[in-house]
Amino acid sequence: MQTLSVELGNRSYPIHIGSGLLQDPGLIAPHMPYKRAALISNETVFPLLGQPVLHSLGQSGVEVFPVIIPDGEQFKTWETLDRIFDTLLAHAFDRKSTLIALGGGVVGDLTGFAAATYQRGVPFIQIPTTLLAQVDSSIGGKTAVNHARGKNMIGAFYQPRLVLADTAALNTLPDREFRAGMAEVIKYGLIRDAKFFTWLEANMDAIFTRESAALTQAILRSCRNKADVVAADEHDQGERALLNLGHTFGHAIEAALGYGVWLHGEAVAAGMVMAAELSHQRGHFSAGELKMTQALIERAGLPTRPPAISAERMFELMQRDKKNEGRNIRLILLRRIGDAYLEAGIREAELLSFLRQFS
Amino acid sequence: MQTLSVELGNRSYPIHIGSGLLQDPGLIAPHMPYKRAALISNETVFPLLGQPVLHSLGQSGVEVFPVIIPDGEQFKTWETLDRIFDTLLAHAFDRKSTLIALGGGVVGDLTGFAAATYQRGVPFIQIPTTLLAQVDSSIGGKTAVNHARGKNMIGAFYQPRLVLADTAALNTLPDREFRAGMAEVIKYGLIRDAKFFTWLEANMDAIFTRESAALTQAILRSCRNKADVVAADEHDQGERALLNLGHTFGHAIEAALGYGVWLHGEAVAAGMVMAAELSHQRGHFSAGELKMTQALIERAGLPTRPPAISAERMFELMQRDKKNEGRNIRLILLRRIGDAYLEAGIREAELLSFLRQFS
Repeated sequence: MQTLSVELGNRSYPIHIGSGLLQDPGLIAPHMPYKRAALISNETVFPLLGQPVLHSLGQSGVEVFPVIIPDGEQFKTWETLDRIFDTLLAHAFDRKSTLIALGGGVVGDLTGFAAATYQRGVPFIQIPTTLLAQVDSSIGGKTAVNHARGKNMIGAFYQPRLVLADTAALNTLPDREFRAGMAEVIKYGLIRDAKFFTWLEANMDAIFTRESAALTQAILRSCRNKADVVAADEHDQGERALLNLGHTFGHAIEAALGYGVWLHGEAVAAGMVMAAELSHQRGHFSAGELKMTQALIERAGLPTRPPAISAERMFELMQRDKKNEGRNIRLILLRRIGDAYLEAGIREAELLSFLRQFS
Repeated sequence: MQTLSVELGNRSYPIHIGSGLLQDPGLIAPHMPYKRAALISNETVFPLLGQPVLHSLGQSGVEVFPVIIPDGEQFKTWETLDRIFDTLLAHAFDRKSTLIALGGGVVGDLTGFAAATYQRGVPFIQIPTTLLAQVDSSIGGKTAVNHARGKNMIGAFYQPRLVLADTAALNTLPDREFRAGMAEVIKYGLIRDAKFFTWLEANMDAIFTRESAALTQAILRSCRNKADVVAADEHDQGERALLNLGHTFGHAIEAALGYGVWLHGEAVAAGMVMAAELSHQRGHFSAGELKMTQALIERAGLPTRPPAISAERMFELMQRDKKNEGRNIRLILLRRIGDAYLEAGIREAELLSFLRQFS
């Protein structure tokens, strides 16, 4: 087991990474004020991974109430939250009862927001079971639900007490979701870790055969990059925006197609190539780096082009991004592999003309 | 104009108290990152006080979108929040647009929770227009909505950038609501400010004729007490619980009758007398002090006894209080006037037998 720390003063917390952690009865209970918890999971994950978690919590004497929600981004809504609240209130959960998320990003974001807002905040533990959640969404305290008018529009910054990333859980993960998770792994190489990018070029095959050592290394390095960024900028006022490389394009792709048609990681992959291309066209990112970026994303089995969406529609959807201030669109662009920056000076005409190259 | 500060490090903020502040164009705009705001108010308050606020914001060049919600505790729900979110998204509000609450506790709690969760947090300004909101709910960052199973069960700690308490706004307040607000004013005397209690005994008549000087003094002193408690314990881990004198009984009364049958302040008034009686029966609070407490609450035109509710029902409702940990009921009791404490050691049998005296 490897352990990292997200350094946030008195809200610092550990990330444990390793194989078989779900079975370890000693890891979770010490992070709970007392031994009462709700385990929030979904209909897909719970049958696969719920029993070992219930068993290890039971061994530590924790009383657990499972709450099983439907699987899918379309259930990341207030209605699902309300079902969670209903269970908590029915069992008289108080402010020191713990919420544990067992699942991917949807379960983690929902459970985190439930924990942030139930009685104005209760303890929260993340057990991410997808690659995407292990390397990205479970770390850093961003919690949210979707609104009919936009993804993640309602949420809170709320830190977990513990993140438990069991690499063995990934054995149950469908290939397509595994690949989608790799988009965020590659992102860390692109935005701030050129050595990791090179390491990924050399180890992509081992990762895709899910060799435990390569996988652990990829997750560990991703988590360390994310933890460092979050520690420097918890509330997304500066450096943290760099984690959004490809995301403004990607969110627009997801919204245009309807959520779930492309997975988040697929949309982000295409969005990262778009950001790399725009960076290149603006004279920052070399043709060779652009090619290396496209090649690595392609080797991960991810799309390197957006689907057919009109430039005007993409532009309209990109205007809703949370990074924007006033009416300006802000984008994360690349100077070099391993070096990203926030570009606030992109004019509407330039962006529309860039988007027309893809539509 | 008098100004107090709530000291919370880089989240400190001023409370301005005085007559005619709504008309002052220079007070609000300096607290906004830029000049775009939604003004959340209700159907009762907005026609009375909306225009001066819109006018003074307009004079500072602020673009304002009013959102008028129905009046009443029964609208302090997710559905109303969602209407606010809908307007914000329709107008492409970003993370530096400001939400301004103009109204009583319901408007303030809802708007604060909307500000806490819209895009994970946007700037927030409180303009409380009821006595209750001016002396209590607008200060301290407690925001919430109700859940079908309990009041204020879903919420967040989220601090405003500014609180503007215009005593002239109270001229539009119905008598019953004014009296209800006095319950919280008296509470500060009981829990931590014996001199203020004495001052209130001497000045109750002047307050009830709404003499500006007496009113300003009562509000100022209340806000100072609350600001001190909040600064010492922002997240309600200790001293802040003392602000709940009478509230565990009071919330149970409100829930048992159905919200809105008794006003919050009326239920708290009866709850404070119950807490005083229980304190007296446990040997802490003298018969004389109990009488002084009842007398002051009665002079404020507030109930000194709960309505007829069975002891079992009261007990059941009291168990849902957010102060509780595990299955113990925790209550704020009084040692003397001006000296409250958290009592965690009340057994079920004792409390039931106490409650039977009233049912």
